[in-house]
Amino acid sequence: MSSLTRYLPVLQWSRTYDGTVLASDLLAAVIVTIMLIPQSLAYAMLAGLPPEVGLYASILPLVAYAIFGTSRTLAVGPVAVVSLMTASAIGEVAAQSSVGYLAAAALLALLSGAMLVLMGVFRLGFLANFLSHPVISGFITASGILIAAGQIRHIVGVQGSGDTLPEIAHGLAGQSNAPNLVALAIGAGVLAFLVFARTHLKRLLRIVGLPARVADMTAKAAPILSVAVTIFIAQAFDLGAEGLALVGAIPQGLPALGLPAFSLDLVGTLALPAFLISVVGFVESVSVGQTLAARRRQRIEPDQELIGLGVANIASGMSSGYPVTGGFARSVVNFDAGAQTPAAGVFTAIGIAVAALFLTPLLASLPQATLAATIIVAVLSLVDLGAIRRVFAYSKSDFAAMAATIIVTLGWGVELGIVAGVLLSLLLHLYRTSRPHMAIVGQVPGTEHYRNIDRHDVITCPEILSVRVDESLYFANSRFLEDRIAAQVAERPALSHVVLMCSAVNAIDASALESLEEINHRLGEAGIGFHLSEVKGPVMDRLRNTQFLQHLHGRVFLSQHEAVCALRTES
Amino acid sequence: MSSLTRYLPVLQWSRTYDGTVLASDLLAAVIVTIMLIPQSLAYAMLAGLPPEVGLYASILPLVAYAIFGTSRTLAVGPVAVVSLMTASAIGEVAAQSSVGYLAAAALLALLSGAMLVLMGVFRLGFLANFLSHPVISGFITASGILIAAGQIRHIVGVQGSGDTLPEIAHGLAGQSNAPNLVALAIGAGVLAFLVFARTHLKRLLRIVGLPARVADMTAKAAPILSVAVTIFIAQAFDLGAEGLALVGAIPQGLPALGLPAFSLDLVGTLALPAFLISVVGFVESVSVGQTLAARRRQRIEPDQELIGLGVANIASGMSSGYPVTGGFARSVVNFDAGAQTPAAGVFTAIGIAVAALFLTPLLASLPQATLAATIIVAVLSLVDLGAIRRVFAYSKSDFAAMAATIIVTLGWGVELGIVAGVLLSLLLHLYRTSRPHMAIVGQVPGTEHYRNIDRHDVITCPEILSVRVDESLYFANSRFLEDRIAAQVAERPALSHVVLMCSAVNAIDASALESLEEINHRLGEAGIGFHLSEVKGPVMDRLRNTQFLQHLHGRVFLSQHEAVCALRTES
Repeated sequence: MSSLTRYLPVLQWSRTYDGTVLASDLLAAVIVTIMLIPQSLAYAMLAGLPPEVGLYASILPLVAYAIFGTSRTLAVGPVAVVSLMTASAIGEVAAQSSVGYLAAAALLALLSGAMLVLMGVFRLGFLANFLSHPVISGFITASGILIAAGQIRHIVGVQGSGDTLPEIAHGLAGQSNAPNLVALAIGAGVLAFLVFARTHLKRLLRIVGLPARVADMTAKAAPILSVAVTIFIAQAFDLGAEGLALVGAIPQGLPALGLPAFSLDLVGTLALPAFLISVVGFVESVSVGQTLAARRRQRIEPDQELIGLGVANIASGMSSGYPVTGGFARSVVNFDAGAQTPAAGVFTAIGIAVAALFLTPLLASLPQATLAATIIVAVLSLVDLGAIRRVFAYSKSDFAAMAATIIVTLGWGVELGIVAGVLLSLLLHLYRTSRPHMAIVGQVPGTEHYRNIDRHDVITCPEILSVRVDESLYFANSRFLEDRIAAQVAERPALSHVVLMCSAVNAIDASALESLEEINHRLGEAGIGFHLSEVKGPVMDRLRNTQFLQHLHGRVFLSQHEAVCALRTES
Repeated sequence: MSSLTRYLPVLQWSRTYDGTVLASDLLAAVIVTIMLIPQSLAYAMLAGLPPEVGLYASILPLVAYAIFGTSRTLAVGPVAVVSLMTASAIGEVAAQSSVGYLAAAALLALLSGAMLVLMGVFRLGFLANFLSHPVISGFITASGILIAAGQIRHIVGVQGSGDTLPEIAHGLAGQSNAPNLVALAIGAGVLAFLVFARTHLKRLLRIVGLPARVADMTAKAAPILSVAVTIFIAQAFDLGAEGLALVGAIPQGLPALGLPAFSLDLVGTLALPAFLISVVGFVESVSVGQTLAARRRQRIEPDQELIGLGVANIASGMSSGYPVTGGFARSVVNFDAGAQTPAAGVFTAIGIAVAALFLTPLLASLPQATLAATIIVAVLSLVDLGAIRRVFAYSKSDFAAMAATIIVTLGWGVELGIVAGVLLSLLLHLYRTSRPHMAIVGQVPGTEHYRNIDRHDVITCPEILSVRVDESLYFANSRFLEDRIAAQVAERPALSHVVLMCSAVNAIDASALESLEEINHRLGEAGIGFHLSEVKGPVMDRLRNTQFLQHLHGRVFLSQHEAVCALRTES
């Protein structure tokens, strides 16, 4: 693969493009476009932006991703969690800065895009690995709850705001206005219909006799049907005049191109949120991309994905959009509808552009309650309580990180939530490795295998203490090792050899080397030999560079069995 | 050991106290007192405090440590690095707060003491392990350089200030005043004498015929001799009137007892510096304590040491002092002079109290240049360039953490320096574990031992792929494992079994469990068995709590040899 095709995956798939593939891609594009129109309006609203920004973020970014991305079926655009993070990031900034809310949103996309591209170029995709599965899962669940709670006011038809659950609850509780009954009727109606469409519509359509795929696609088109019907109702009864909140006039036309207005101060303020959005967006996107690629035995390249998503975000920032990423629901629809290549994304972009040019006058009468109901149904599927239960059963420390992520996200907002989760999971991991499991081992009878004397019936020998330390030796646990070996030796007056079985020691850093020297020195003064066994190649290479092996009052054995045989013969 | 003796080690050693021990302790106390008087004045000056504060910090804290500490010979009091950190912490605060510099220093000691006691009660001594040896060594070297550079102005006799090397250099370079020649003569003279005393005096005294121990002690008393001689010179020639900076009038008497004035704001500002001082002070003190205890086959209890140091700092804060810890040089002197119990510390405290009551009028004419020279000679022994070379040779990532600590400490100050070092060493450790070493293994002929095919002549079998992963499986490396196994499997069309040898896997967290399920699922779809071998007890216990073992397309074997034998027979 030449480096040009590596950085421009479009050159690869476009070579074999033909009529059959075109037909599949076109069909998928139509279906995704229909799904994306209400979603992009809704998510823009969720981000606190005018609805047209959602459409703008669904045009050029899709074209950019089609050129630079490696997933054949990932559908890029505004998504719920990133929209919520956008709202949180620019909510405070825009109020206190002279640059407007719209420019701040576009700048956020630009910064996030630039960071993603840089991470891709420097192959920093591994950074995303530091978001553990429980932290991501907890974060997405908490974001789903926050988003749904934040939409309640649109359904009830009252004012309100807030980035955290207590703020949202306080905003709703502090309402002096009565609920708007028209909004409530429309919101609750759409909500009920969408839930019904998710759970029963497909089965019902199949009973009526539709083929499985058509039934599935029709059920997925339920949101656009809700939009059409509620627009019609709002216009027919002039509900805007009755106090129903409508989307209102949306400018007709394509987005203006160019850099958003910005100041260096604003760049500084938005840098951290942009970084968090980049990482969360990348993780979400790459998980979706990998899941779909695996189903068709394709591969995606994480480092090139960073570049693809980065360029998509830069395109969004330069066309009056806001941060985008690969969305789960729409990618699955794209995949199921038969999309074969990223060209489907280009056709979707054309579809959205047509909508921005010609359909926006129709959308002016769309009730906000309809969009709110669309959002609630979409995000509640993100809430995964089963995952919380599973993680709790498996590992208390993973659960602690997950619970911290959920609680901090709900109570103090998305940015603190993700940071708290990552830090806590790292600290718990470090804490565990700082107090490693150590086992005294003996020979499993009839084999050359050595296992824990507390768990297996094994053969030991009083003058040889064989200790297996189950962790790499590094600064956080080196002192612990010294203490534990000293304690074990103190209990055994007959001892003449200590063998440290290093099968689980993957590295020995400078601090641990000093500790080993100290242990060697102390054992030597007590007339006890200090031996190592099963030292791995890379660890041994490094020890050979030091004076340690010369000073060692003992030997290094290839295997534990060899060590015990040799030392038993000697003593 | 009853819990009372555990928390009050004094109850243990005082039981066997007798005349012989008393005589040893008294002699050691006299020698340490003589050493401590100039040191405590000098370090107080280094912390930007009036000289008497150094004396105050050398009275009650010593008594408190004698009651609560576990080291028999540790000498507690003001030390260079902690004095520098104190100067940095309260330098900004006192200027902008209504509470004075003195009260801020005492409050810092109080906060640091409270934190140490809490850490001791909650057994958080392991936190100190996160300071790796290279980071500590780099930090102490950089602090030594900073301290020495900061004293140059007293030797040259000009004004100046600064907490970082660039600030200090800028302060010295920007001087419009000419150097004070009297200060320069005294400073350079004392400096030369002290260096000579360190390097040659002892040998010279032995040649003259003094016994080794007396020669050693006399050489160590060189600083007090410099003090006496330069006080005499300054008084005899009335050098204060010639523009030589003197210590000036020191209030005669004992420190006032009581809480320092404080505000909650100030507590908030000082909390982080107090924490850093606590950790650095504890690490320094515990290293000295352990080294000395090991020489006499005694033990110190790190968690009780936290309490001992904590109470010492609280005592310092309540007697107009500033943060203290166990000092290396004076502890060694105490040890060499024959101190047997912490009672030597109590006698030293009495000696310093006598000095504060009666000797302060004499100290008024002490030139500041003398103290500066004392400090420079003391701290330059902290600079350990050999350690930098050794760490560089052994491990580039340890060296990176060390270099970052040194550079940030010199360029941006002590607090940022230590934080940068800890964070970088943790990040590099995590980075390493996120890309673990993996080896394909085969049987070492004639044994049941399995090693890396790239390093040993081993026997393999084409239908079985045995992979040893040299790291615990956790979120940061779980995706890496998936990718690597997929890549290995793709290269081997004849493969029917993959055995993951888990001898180095000390834990499997929830993220890694999902990855293993994914690997199992993918291999299963390709018709390849997925087996585990040498799974450790604690890891196996946890896997048994999940569905993973039921879903596994393969088995778990006690040893790698058993796995290969069984699978070879089957295929």
